[in-house]
Amino acid sequence: MKKIINNPGDILAEMVSGFVKVHQDLVVKSDDSFTVCKKTKTQGKVALVSGGGSGHEPAHAGFVGAGMLSAAVCGQVFTSPTPDQILDGIIQANQGAGVLLIVKNYSGDLMNFDMAKELAEMEDIEVGVVIVDDDIAVENSTYTQGKRGVAGTVFMHKILGAAAESGLGLAELVELGKTLVAEVKTIGVALTGATVPEVGKPGFILDEDTLEFGVGIHGEPGYKKEKMCTSAEIVAEMIPRLKAAFKWDKEEKFAILVNGLGGTPLMEQYIFAEDVYHSCAEEGIDICFAKVGNYMTALDMSGVSLSLLRLQDENWLKYLEAPANTVAWKS
Amino acid sequence: MKKIINNPGDILAEMVSGFVKVHQDLVVKSDDSFTVCKKTKTQGKVALVSGGGSGHEPAHAGFVGAGMLSAAVCGQVFTSPTPDQILDGIIQANQGAGVLLIVKNYSGDLMNFDMAKELAEMEDIEVGVVIVDDDIAVENSTYTQGKRGVAGTVFMHKILGAAAESGLGLAELVELGKTLVAEVKTIGVALTGATVPEVGKPGFILDEDTLEFGVGIHGEPGYKKEKMCTSAEIVAEMIPRLKAAFKWDKEEKFAILVNGLGGTPLMEQYIFAEDVYHSCAEEGIDICFAKVGNYMTALDMSGVSLSLLRLQDENWLKYLEAPANTVAWKS
Repeated sequence: MKKIINNPGDILAEMVSGFVKVHQDLVVKSDDSFTVCKKTKTQGKVALVSGGGSGHEPAHAGFVGAGMLSAAVCGQVFTSPTPDQILDGIIQANQGAGVLLIVKNYSGDLMNFDMAKELAEMEDIEVGVVIVDDDIAVENSTYTQGKRGVAGTVFMHKILGAAAESGLGLAELVELGKTLVAEVKTIGVALTGATVPEVGKPGFILDEDTLEFGVGIHGEPGYKKEKMCTSAEIVAEMIPRLKAAFKWDKEEKFAILVNGLGGTPLMEQYIFAEDVYHSCAEEGIDICFAKVGNYMTALDMSGVSLSLLRLQDENWLKYLEAPANTVAWKS
Repeated sequence: MKKIINNPGDILAEMVSGFVKVHQDLVVKSDDSFTVCKKTKTQGKVALVSGGGSGHEPAHAGFVGAGMLSAAVCGQVFTSPTPDQILDGIIQANQGAGVLLIVKNYSGDLMNFDMAKELAEMEDIEVGVVIVDDDIAVENSTYTQGKRGVAGTVFMHKILGAAAESGLGLAELVELGKTLVAEVKTIGVALTGATVPEVGKPGFILDEDTLEFGVGIHGEPGYKKEKMCTSAEIVAEMIPRLKAAFKWDKEEKFAILVNGLGGTPLMEQYIFAEDVYHSCAEEGIDICFAKVGNYMTALDMSGVSLSLLRLQDENWLKYLEAPANTVAWKS
């Protein structure tokens, strides 16, 4: 294993400390936990809190700032933050109008965010929850009942963040979150496994001529291994599965996110995006908004995921395009 | 080799096409060459043009937009664009007040940008040149006489772009560029080689317990191979070399860029940045501005580079912080 780290046990502390020093114009660190908070609060608006295991950078701390998250709670690598950490995040984030938790669908995260919600309610903070399960690759997985939450979560952060900024209340945001999550679907492909520093070797090994569709962002098994193929062939595997999940009609409008998993260069991500545009044009669906880059990674995993969001409501595109001032999403 | 591509010969065309589709709000593609141009011109201001071989994404197309480059000319992978391509970039970029070329110091780039300059002058476009040679690792290299131009080039784009936006003329920008380049110094470390798609195997192989200091962004040899060591030890190798090059005094002000080379996760880059802050604090020098991320990559190479810019003039920090609206640098 070759990684630019010091003691593997210090990864989280050193990463968060580096992050808040570099981005001190945007964020501060909570003294009591590995929580990255927005520097300037907007009193009277619902605060959004997300988080989960680390190793997915820039998620989620990279999305803290005006127009997106109020706080991100950072767990150890691929490990849910504790209820106490999340409670601290909720308290730090609270702007007096309730707190919305955006939780990726993993059993550990669900349990710990739920406990934190109960603890916060005992302190008279109103808390709502949106659970994101956008990965259509498999039902149930190593750490999940149901579908996993992956890169589509970033669209949730942006749209719900802009909606909160526009003044929506907690109950409205929970409602919007539920509607949204049904319209966000993701599928990924891995070319290599990811190496957790404490483990020191890849979570799985793929042969030099093999890729695997549907691998999760913690290296959970996918649904199919295949011979290495072209970008266009990868897209040709993914689009029909997304189509089956969406049952889309021609001329429907979508936002797309081509997401690098950590070890895949931007060059390849843009080539893949070009193939996605071609395929969507053939399907007759309309890409109105696009992002390409490393948004929700899996440490050093090589591969990409493709997220589609069906823009059912014209406000959603407005929310996607609304101003945001975070490390990894500025508009 | 596992890469998400189609025909290796189509990489450049497909990447540029994907790039301009995804970022159609910011950029357009020249019909005649692989040149990415700013969508909206600012008539009467000097236009900045950069470029070089592809494989360094987001450089340079990711820095095209208001406040930075007017155009980026994209060559084949690790190959200089041709004089004709560069001439087209100059013509497309020209806003009627002269064009400044920012060229990384590689023999092929120097020759082709210089020929393009002559061709443009024959069409009565005034052209100035700034050559960037920030890599202090080695003198002369596989493709270079003198020192190589690497990640520090991004600081040049930002400062010269902001200065052009503020109204400086071509001669003043050339002068500023020369002053700046003497104050930008970079040193890198590689954990793996990069694989050029047409070649299909890494340009060099490092053992599983070895890293190499001073490798170039095309895999040019560095100055020393060592046993894999910690992030703090990497910083402890780099800072004294930067100090020897700058001969800095305590309390001098610097901007830093921690740059991922393509295959290194952000997690490691932030841990490395944390160690850089510690080391600079021990040196008594002041980090006033910091960037961390993949700015000037070497395809899928694993490793980082560290660039320091001594802020000799208070305007330079203002220029760094000035508004920019590009794909990879927004402020």
